[in-house]
Amino acid sequence: MNDLRIDGKRLWNSLMELAQIGATPKGGVRRLTLTDEDRRARDLFCRWARDAGLAVEVDGIGNLFARRAGTDPSLPPVAMGSHLDSQPSGGKFDGAYGVMAGLEVLRTLNDAGIRTRAPMEVVSWTNEEGSRFTPVLMGSGVFSGVFTLEHVRAQKDLEGVSVGDALEKIGYAGGARAHRLSAYFEAHIEQGPVLENEGRTIGVVLGALGQRWYDVTVTGQDAHAGPTPMELRQDALIGASRLVLEVNRIAREFPDYARGTVGFLQVKPNSRNVIPGEVRTTVDFRNAKASTLDAMCDELKRVAKAIEAQCRVSIELRENVYFKPCEFDPALVGHVRAAAAALGQSHRDIVSGAGHDAVSIARIAPAAMVFVPCAGGISHNEIESATPADLAAGCDVLLHAALKAAGVAGVSRAAA
Amino acid sequence: MNDLRIDGKRLWNSLMELAQIGATPKGGVRRLTLTDEDRRARDLFCRWARDAGLAVEVDGIGNLFARRAGTDPSLPPVAMGSHLDSQPSGGKFDGAYGVMAGLEVLRTLNDAGIRTRAPMEVVSWTNEEGSRFTPVLMGSGVFSGVFTLEHVRAQKDLEGVSVGDALEKIGYAGGARAHRLSAYFEAHIEQGPVLENEGRTIGVVLGALGQRWYDVTVTGQDAHAGPTPMELRQDALIGASRLVLEVNRIAREFPDYARGTVGFLQVKPNSRNVIPGEVRTTVDFRNAKASTLDAMCDELKRVAKAIEAQCRVSIELRENVYFKPCEFDPALVGHVRAAAAALGQSHRDIVSGAGHDAVSIARIAPAAMVFVPCAGGISHNEIESATPADLAAGCDVLLHAALKAAGVAGVSRAAA
Repeated sequence: MNDLRIDGKRLWNSLMELAQIGATPKGGVRRLTLTDEDRRARDLFCRWARDAGLAVEVDGIGNLFARRAGTDPSLPPVAMGSHLDSQPSGGKFDGAYGVMAGLEVLRTLNDAGIRTRAPMEVVSWTNEEGSRFTPVLMGSGVFSGVFTLEHVRAQKDLEGVSVGDALEKIGYAGGARAHRLSAYFEAHIEQGPVLENEGRTIGVVLGALGQRWYDVTVTGQDAHAGPTPMELRQDALIGASRLVLEVNRIAREFPDYARGTVGFLQVKPNSRNVIPGEVRTTVDFRNAKASTLDAMCDELKRVAKAIEAQCRVSIELRENVYFKPCEFDPALVGHVRAAAAALGQSHRDIVSGAGHDAVSIARIAPAAMVFVPCAGGISHNEIESATPADLAAGCDVLLHAALKAAGVAGVSRAAA
Repeated sequence: MNDLRIDGKRLWNSLMELAQIGATPKGGVRRLTLTDEDRRARDLFCRWARDAGLAVEVDGIGNLFARRAGTDPSLPPVAMGSHLDSQPSGGKFDGAYGVMAGLEVLRTLNDAGIRTRAPMEVVSWTNEEGSRFTPVLMGSGVFSGVFTLEHVRAQKDLEGVSVGDALEKIGYAGGARAHRLSAYFEAHIEQGPVLENEGRTIGVVLGALGQRWYDVTVTGQDAHAGPTPMELRQDALIGASRLVLEVNRIAREFPDYARGTVGFLQVKPNSRNVIPGEVRTTVDFRNAKASTLDAMCDELKRVAKAIEAQCRVSIELRENVYFKPCEFDPALVGHVRAAAAALGQSHRDIVSGAGHDAVSIARIAPAAMVFVPCAGGISHNEIESATPADLAAGCDVLLHAALKAAGVAGVSRAAA
């Protein structure tokens, strides 16, 4: 059993075939959630799952569960997964790797004829990215009770299309209900530079940074750029630019892995000779420690007041996401570390800066993650890249950690 | 003669009747150049001009000239005017006021039986706004030799209709040739907040700000907001925000009516949890003095270099518009100031931040402008508003300044 390895070439080929769906000219993927590209990726996954003899179910928010039976039907399944949706200019591995790695683990068990005590399943969570519809981590959030199905079905994209309508349009509003999980493992590219910088292959993920996100509206008064003297302006973009720089300063000054990002900014009316009357923007704060994260947000509110007074604008901050810092299950983290060691893979403990479906699932089940390096730490980008060898190594770790959680019941004669 | 006043009620009624053509539900005007609405406005103006005994001519680009004879046929006319076209969501006064005020001046001279030495004429310039066809200031630009008639007749709107075809369709491609002008006066709403802010009625316009416009691209590297440590980021929006604030600082620190605006800004990929990799934005610098305008641009280039180094981004500046500052004719400006003083109107010297037909005409003839306040400084908007009293006061100033330029030859018995 210790010699069991996944098929790295099959894993790679699955990733490359999947990446054709929504492929961009620069080698990335644009597969926004609940679009036709997402539907085609789901169709392909379901076909592969059925080809592997797995039973596929879809729940109300469109999460896909592909189950391989265990010998003890009383045990909840050990799940492995991630997501198939991408950022607007995303890469081939973010999310897709965790789903394809889970599928590869079950294909490997099929090939080897290994029966597990607990059932095992591969999961694809709906709308992890949050690019088209907020909130992010939508599917895993509904599954773990963070959001109600009614609430998220009513969310709309910029064109006014609701999640519910989009789900029905692509045919993935299913009827399966949430079920218990014995364990949840998620393999993922690191999306940061730490493993590559240290030349290590496996990140044993201890937990994830907490996050607090805001929608921000800066309101001034639009006016003709020529005749309006500087001192009489109420330029919303001046206020917004000040805020962008303050978010950056706060993240640089606070401890505990503080991060702060303004990734979205929209100007109205956005004409080169009109003073902006309104800016809609966002703030994304992260920290490993809940109290420091709160202190960053208090500082943001303080500087927003100061900017309002100095720039003659009003600033509205609406918090729309709060994820506490997350600690993964020590036993499952131990399985990941032990598997990496047994496989002879160089590894280190690491904290995730990004949110992952595993963070939602950790609320209701033991969870853990396996990280592999990505080139330059670059993700959410068309040039996102990972090597076949690293991806295979991470999938082997996933295999052995998940097998440990599920328990081996035996090997069938046909494959033995 | 000093007691002569225009008929404020007639002026207001003419403006309100004209504003019915292309009237919008919110009280504004949509009268895009060379459309059927423009034709109807021209027809009404021509009828009123002929009713006032004026000789109407149309030139090749559709500029309308309505002339009242003087006693000395060797003198070129003293012209007054502006434009009848509007922005897509424009107001009742931008442009229309200057044409109706010119007409009211000649109606007033008729009523009073005043003969002038120079002929006087009211002009309506074609396509000042540039909303349907570029370039802006088209009719006055052709008249003053900035553009050739052939060039502008070939310009097309978004539907592919050319200026030449549109002119012929509405029946306003005339045969009159460009002629000399003794003087040109343009009455206009300020389109800015200065007069209202100071509680003054008349703006004595010294000239118009020069303009230098840039397209700007800030390039960094997009990356996932969570796992990327602050010190390793190349955030294009940090660079762009620094630039926005520097444009504002430069405009506040430089003299000579300096203005600086970033009105357009577009973030890529514009996702809340992705560090922006690229920002496209613009800079609009204006100044009354060419050397100061140049110095502002030099300072912009210097700070862009500094931001590149500090923020680990690259910044490309591409200049795409340069209009020199315009100084109006000191003698005519003096006539405007003297008329305002003689009429007991509160007034101040002012510089136009926007372009006007008078700026084109100033290239070939002595020119000046009279500004009146508009509510909140708001223009290019359906809620654009000005009071009957202010509009009448500006028209009285126009009357006396233009009379000074044309010279009074006498008063006819009938009216005396």
